[in-house]
Amino acid sequence: MSTVSLSVDPENDPRIKAVFDDIRTTRNTQTVNALWHYLAFDPTLLEETWRDVKELMATETLIDFKTKEMLYLAVSIANACDYCAHSHTAAARARGMTDAEYGELLRIVGLASKTNALANAIKPPVDAVFDKERS
Amino acid sequence: MSTVSLSVDPENDPRIKAVFDDIRTTRNTQTVNALWHYLAFDPTLLEETWRDVKELMATETLIDFKTKEMLYLAVSIANACDYCAHSHTAAARARGMTDAEYGELLRIVGLASKTNALANAIKPPVDAVFDKERS
Amino acid sequence: MSTVSLSVDPENDPRIKAVFDDIRTTRNTQTVNALWHYLAFDPTLLEETWRDVKELMATETLIDFKTKEMLYLAVSIANACDYCAHSHTAAARARGMTDAEYGELLRIVGLASKTNALANAIKPPVDAVFDKERS
Amino acid sequence: MSTVSLSVDPENDPRIKAVFDDIRTTRNTQTVNALWHYLAFDPTLLEETWRDVKELMATETLIDFKTKEMLYLAVSIANACDYCAHSHTAAARARGMTDAEYGELLRIVGLASKTNALANAIKPPVDAVFDKERS
Amino acid sequence: MSTVSLSVDPENDPRIKAVFDDIRTTRNTQTVNALWHYLAFDPTLLEETWRDVKELMATETLIDFKTKEMLYLAVSIANACDYCAHSHTAAARARGMTDAEYGELLRIVGLASKTNALANAIKPPVDAVFDKERS
Amino acid sequence: MSTVSLSVDPENDPRIKAVFDDIRTTRNTQTVNALWHYLAFDPTLLEETWRDVKELMATETLIDFKTKEMLYLAVSIANACDYCAHSHTAAARARGMTDAEYGELLRIVGLASKTNALANAIKPPVDAVFDKERS
Repeated sequence: MSTVSLSVDPENDPRIKAVFDDIRTTRNTQTVNALWHYLAFDPTLLEETWRDVKELMATETLIDFKTKEMLYLAVSIANACDYCAHSHTAAARARGMTDAEYGELLRIVGLASKTNALANAIKPPVDAVFDKERS
Repeated sequence: MSTVSLSVDPENDPRIKAVFDDIRTTRNTQTVNALWHYLAFDPTLLEETWRDVKELMATETLIDFKTKEMLYLAVSIANACDYCAHSHTAAARARGMTDAEYGELLRIVGLASKTNALANAIKPPVDAVFDKERS
Repeated sequence: MSTVSLSVDPENDPRIKAVFDDIRTTRNTQTVNALWHYLAFDPTLLEETWRDVKELMATETLIDFKTKEMLYLAVSIANACDYCAHSHTAAARARGMTDAEYGELLRIVGLASKTNALANAIKPPVDAVFDKERS
Repeated sequence: MSTVSLSVDPENDPRIKAVFDDIRTTRNTQTVNALWHYLAFDPTLLEETWRDVKELMATETLIDFKTKEMLYLAVSIANACDYCAHSHTAAARARGMTDAEYGELLRIVGLASKTNALANAIKPPVDAVFDKERS
Repeated sequence: MSTVSLSVDPENDPRIKAVFDDIRTTRNTQTVNALWHYLAFDPTLLEETWRDVKELMATETLIDFKTKEMLYLAVSIANACDYCAHSHTAAARARGMTDAEYGELLRIVGLASKTNALANAIKPPVDAVFDKERS
Repeated sequence: MSTVSLSVDPENDPRIKAVFDDIRTTRNTQTVNALWHYLAFDPTLLEETWRDVKELMATETLIDFKTKEMLYLAVSIANACDYCAHSHTAAARARGMTDAEYGELLRIVGLASKTNALANAIKPPVDAVFDKERS
């Protein structure tokens, strides 16, 4: 069940085929996962989203691939995204995250969620020492 | 401005003094930042929160200190916690996060927030390959 | 699966029947969608919710019907409401939203989610020029 | 700093005066707190919001006043509403919430936020026994 | 479908068996609901989470059991946690919450969500009278 | 107070100067609002964010400028972004949003937030008629 319908043969559209081909090449896989198939209802949306994900998550940058996927996952959990919790847990594992690291990630996400709530309730003043602007 | 009032001399209460002393020793600093001062209105809440934070964030565990703080920060941003964004950016920097790493963290948090929204809108079915339960 | 149980014949209760009849008349349809059936476990909750929705979304007001549904949908996505993402995408389409407009709405929701996260991370001071109070 | 500007004499508008008078009478106070002054830029919005708040929070209903305010506060914290955290902590205190009860409320909000994150990460199947629909 | 896989016989691990036994004894039931089975992939995470839940939710404290579960439920709804909405509605009912009380809880959660959004939009200044720090 | 510090003369960096110049030209103003000044601590983040905002919000597309800003604002409110609530209320007004339209937008955001919470609590099954995939 989705809010968009899949076309029978999306890769008839050359813009969609180009993105799907690039996903397969970049990730060295035959599988294009569901999110991309559904985003394809709007080729511009598909192209932009893949460009952003490719540039940051599939390219070597400053932070290593495993840590980047764990950060992405932590945000996805906090945003209550069901699909993303599944896809980015799988992605982090593919980049080397062990069960023990996943367990520790969950302890961090859980604790942060707890203290975030406490600070949002009590609203303590931000310590001057945390003010980077004036340091 | 806060929803609780500070006592004039919180460390008259031995439970509060014990936590504050442990914070100073553990972090090797004279400063106890504002959140703890305000949590002290309820010593049980203070003790529990510090116990959790100390065990996970101030103790050597599987994930290195810098990465743990960056994960904590990513969640705090997603949860729109003003105080925590400040305190955990400072904590991550104290653990070695550079400006360039902070910039990349923000790109990841931004992109995840975007694709989380897209997936929560379109609601694609979760790919069977992501189902750890049956793998 | 739901947290409330449906009664076998909800319209035996005249308060429920009145609301369901009004939904059918107002929307010119025989279908009362699931949310209303489940809200009916508490007739006061049902009546209040329908009154609010009818007054704002089923009545001609300042903003046209299609735009109102698109705004409603944007909020529902941001709030990670699965049922609402489905029902209000359908409602916006019924009011004339095309696939191309839906794609553009998603680009806006995605971009806003991204820059919301960036601003909640960096916490820039609000520009004086945005302060309506003093303008 | 606000996104709307206050009028110099809002009670010149009889619709605004009627709401403000009702707030003062209902709450037995001379003070109309800031939210209502700012909502007054749109009298319809002001009237509807006050009607809803009055009917539920200022009227004797099934749940006692203190518990209602504590529930309202718990939601306001979870939604990261700065103004509401302040106003509803004050309101709950005015209805009898003690510091010890506030501390316990915060422990509940913190723990729920933590386990909410864990369940949103792991996505366990909902136990059949929780399905009210089929019970 | 979950992001973790269940072991065939989790209670072969004495740490897991100890927690499951304690859940069964504390709650006086033979059923250990799904969340605990899935958390068991990381025994430390399982132990910590159960310790926290037991101390606060399964122990007599200041606030009565029914109210505690209703507060927990209100937060779980606001955080869009599907599993938790189900499990804590059931838990609150087991502690005595009636359908009428559930309906009223939903009216409060709904109204708070609405006014939270209004205040987060308009950003009225927090009234000095709400500032506990200076009172 | 911010988590990043401003450089004394950011436009000494030609990448930053290019973005700021483009903002001034595109918006036909001398003012570059604070968010961009703070994003400039990481030129890549600045460039990407401006590229995205320019392409979607400062370019003629399918949806008119005023409606786009109102959608952006609705999301920003739902995400509890203080800075964005201010900046995008101002932007929507600059594109022609009247006070009356702003009031109606707030009624929609408020009502959606309320019914989002109700549906996330009750979890009604999604009606088959809303399933675009099978239609």
